[in-house]
Amino acid sequence: MANPARDALHFPSHHAQQIDPYIPTLPATPTPTTKPHVTLTFATSLDSQLSLAPGIQTALSGPESKAMTHYLRSKHDAILIGVGTAVADNPSLNCRIEGVGGYGGEGLEGQPRPVVIDPKGRWTFSADSKVLKLAAEGKGRAPWVVAGLGRVDEERRGMLESLRGKVLEFDSSGSSISWSEILNRLVNDGVKSVMIEGGGGVINELLAPENVGLVDSVILTIAPVWLGKGGVQVCPDARVEDGQRLAVSRLKDVKWVPLGDDVVLCGHPRLA
Amino acid sequence: MANPARDALHFPSHHAQQIDPYIPTLPATPTPTTKPHVTLTFATSLDSQLSLAPGIQTALSGPESKAMTHYLRSKHDAILIGVGTAVADNPSLNCRIEGVGGYGGEGLEGQPRPVVIDPKGRWTFSADSKVLKLAAEGKGRAPWVVAGLGRVDEERRGMLESLRGKVLEFDSSGSSISWSEILNRLVNDGVKSVMIEGGGGVINELLAPENVGLVDSVILTIAPVWLGKGGVQVCPDARVEDGQRLAVSRLKDVKWVPLGDDVVLCGHPRLA
Ligand SMILES: NC(=O)c1ccc[n+]([C@@H]2O[C@H](COP(=O)([O-])OP(=O)(O)OC[C@H]3O[C@@H](n4cnc5c(N)ncnc54)[C@H](OP(=O)(O)O)[C@@H]3O)[C@@H](O)[C@H]2O)c1
Ligand SMILES: NC(=O)c1ccc[n+]([C@@H]2O[C@H](COP(=O)([O-])OP(=O)(O)OC[C@H]3O[C@@H](n4cnc5c(N)ncnc54)[C@H](OP(=O)(O)O)[C@@H]3O)[C@@H](O)[C@H]2O)c1
Repeated sequence: MANPARDALHFPSHHAQQIDPYIPTLPATPTPTTKPHVTLTFATSLDSQLSLAPGIQTALSGPESKAMTHYLRSKHDAILIGVGTAVADNPSLNCRIEGVGGYGGEGLEGQPRPVVIDPKGRWTFSADSKVLKLAAEGKGRAPWVVAGLGRVDEERRGMLESLRGKVLEFDSSGSSISWSEILNRLVNDGVKSVMIEGGGGVINELLAPENVGLVDSVILTIAPVWLGKGGVQVCPDARVEDGQRLAVSRLKDVKWVPLGDDVVLCGHPRLA
Repeated sequence: MANPARDALHFPSHHAQQIDPYIPTLPATPTPTTKPHVTLTFATSLDSQLSLAPGIQTALSGPESKAMTHYLRSKHDAILIGVGTAVADNPSLNCRIEGVGGYGGEGLEGQPRPVVIDPKGRWTFSADSKVLKLAAEGKGRAPWVVAGLGRVDEERRGMLESLRGKVLEFDSSGSSISWSEILNRLVNDGVKSVMIEGGGGVINELLAPENVGLVDSVILTIAPVWLGKGGVQVCPDARVEDGQRLAVSRLKDVKWVPLGDDVVLCGHPRLA
């Protein structure tokens, strides 16, 4: 292993041991499956918000949580976000944990595939977008963009393909695509595990009663701060059965891991 | 000490030790003060909700958290709620930890004073309301009702006074009363520490930038469940300074204590 890069992150093994039971372990002989292992992971405030306002990136959690996120990225084949986050955050979507490809390791070993859900082609990325720059520098993989037929123009498609990224087209007329279709497409393209990072739109869909069965693990960081009304909130649609409100979902096999000033909550979601 | 009552609760001392730095310690020689020690304490879901809908009581946290709540009640002179909670929950508002008055202890030792904020006199309590019944049985104190002038009728006032409760009248024309006035009145009436338990209306007011300085400690339980849209949410009003959104408040001296499937968060609130 070469020397780790100066900006490489380190996640101590006593923390990793606590999180490890919730990250994908792949069977020795792979069995046919319709979806990858799905880990839903994000950071919220105490008032369950991801950011102060739509389109704003808000620093919530501390440096320890950041290292954890990068550790998790190294343990998944892909990392998925919605177009709202791609546009708001200009995210890097690579893994900077020490020892992965580009940060002390060989090639792109340990670098997850970024996947952006962008049915209408709203993400106007360029060669200057962080994720494409990092791919060009060999410090991350180029993204896959999940889009409606013909929604990503030829120039951008070419830009992706020249960096070994691609467009995954769906005949969705630019509207909502079912999560089981998205996940099925990913597993068919070789993605055995995916970490879904946000934003609000994506998380609320995956926590909804009809999708929560698709999520294998939740690894959620909570920061001890209240952001106040008007932010991007994690709160799934209500669940009503026989005219009665019920809780939407409850985590099983719960573990709370204090990490700096934050806490990390791990569990397996089930209908409540 | 007599035998503890059969319904007495027990909070183990290794848990109590973790919480104790956040509960009031009173100086040997009391100094004049304008307000009691204020502990804000409540239980939320991951989506920061207190209940599935206004006027519904929702079981969120486990038995360990319940024992903690009663332990905290034994450590405060008073326990305060808003009229919304009094009407929705018909709460007991007494302390059932083993060893306090009525639960193995003498007289009303360790029983907090219930205080209900009810400016318009909406709480139509009767001798059958739990809190009054418990007071009549010697298992708790009778409530103080904070109300607008003349808002509590003579019959109910008499019912309170016969159990050694009372009405604290404010010339508020039945509208909002400032929290510094409420707290000042309490300290003048001998309350050196108050635990504020909810509900949403009260908590959001106390977390707002103008009041958060009145809160000494926050002891918050989070249960690993999402309730979904439409519940009673804890989310203070936004803070805007010089046209910019800012986080409302952040806890200092943070401690996270896993308790059963829940976590308890302790801290001292400060403007973020
Ligand atoms: N704290 C954290 O951990 C964290 C993590 C990530 C993001 N964030 C924050 O979250 C905010 C962005 O959240 P957001 O809710 O605006 O955006 P988002 O969830 O990133 O993206 C939502 C968009 O993705 C597309 N989409 C999602 N599910 C789809 C489906 N099943 N089929 C088709 N399209 C789908 C839709 O695009 P169309 O509208 O084009 O149809 C939808 O509007 C930003 O402020 C960001 O900083 C925070
Ligand atoms: N999970 C928990 O820990 C927990 C704890 C407590 C309650 N709860 C739940 O919370 C819900 C009730 O919450 P809520 O928001 O409806 O009611 P609430 O906060 O209990 O009561 C709000 C009311 O109190 C009065 N009030 C509050 N502050 C005041 C002030 N400064 N001056 C004058 N009056 C003031 C107002 O009465 P008026 O409208 O008459 O002016 C206000 O509408 C219930 O579903 C209950 O089960 C949950």
